Amino acid sequence: MDDCIFCKIVDKQISSNIVFENAKVLGFLDIEPSHEMHVLFVPKKHVSSLHELDPNDIGLISDLYAAALEFSKKEGLSHHRTLINTGEPFQEVFHVHLHLLSGNRLKSRHN
Amino acid sequence: MDDCIFCKIVDKQISSNIVFENAKVLGFLDIEPSHEMHVLFVPKKHVSSLHELDPNDIGLISDLYAAALEFSKKEGLSHHRTLINTGEPFQEVFHVHLHLLSGNRLKSRHN
Repeated sequence: MDDCIFCKIVDKQISSNIVFENAKVLGFLDIEPSHEMHVLFVPKKHVSSLHELDPNDIGLISDLYAAALEFSKKEGLSHHRTLINTGEPFQEVFHVHLHLLSGNRLKSRHN
Repeated sequence: MDDCIFCKIVDKQISSNIVFENAKVLGFLDIEPSHEMHVLFVPKKHVSSLHELDPNDIGLISDLYAAALEFSKKEGLSHHRTLINTGEPFQEVFHVHLHLLSGNRLKSRHN
């Protein structure tokens, strides 16, 4: 999508702190972290929200979680919260993204 | 698991307010809701946490999300947050569960 900031990050038109990448998923640091560790995992394919996810593409969610769990294992995280916001007012960017939160909370944005 | 409260709910040994059920997943109301709508979706198969999830069973996460999205669509939810806590201190019950939160926040437990 031409006007999607996460598509531009996936396409490397916008720089980000990339911490994970495979064929389907990109993981990068949230620029406004709510916890000491705050990574966003996005599908390389644009899907605006889980409301618009084709049921045949439900495996995309497992792809995101597999990426987050692989990253978590590599980092040796003892605990984490993984969450997806869908629809306003919870969702801020309309390209599906999985938040991975760990460590101490920095502010109230995502608890 | 004999000592797992969510296994007992799945087996109907402990009563709960069930709002969703299919072959793999049970959905029931959280007894301490953090939002106006707060449902827990659990796999009928016991898995203690995502730390212990066999990578071959990653599809279990899509099963939980498919259940939550089916429920959300049926209820006509305009927005929701879906989250999984893994490991202490975030995780309170050691049987994987997906929180579905919607509506106004009632308290700070899960933001």
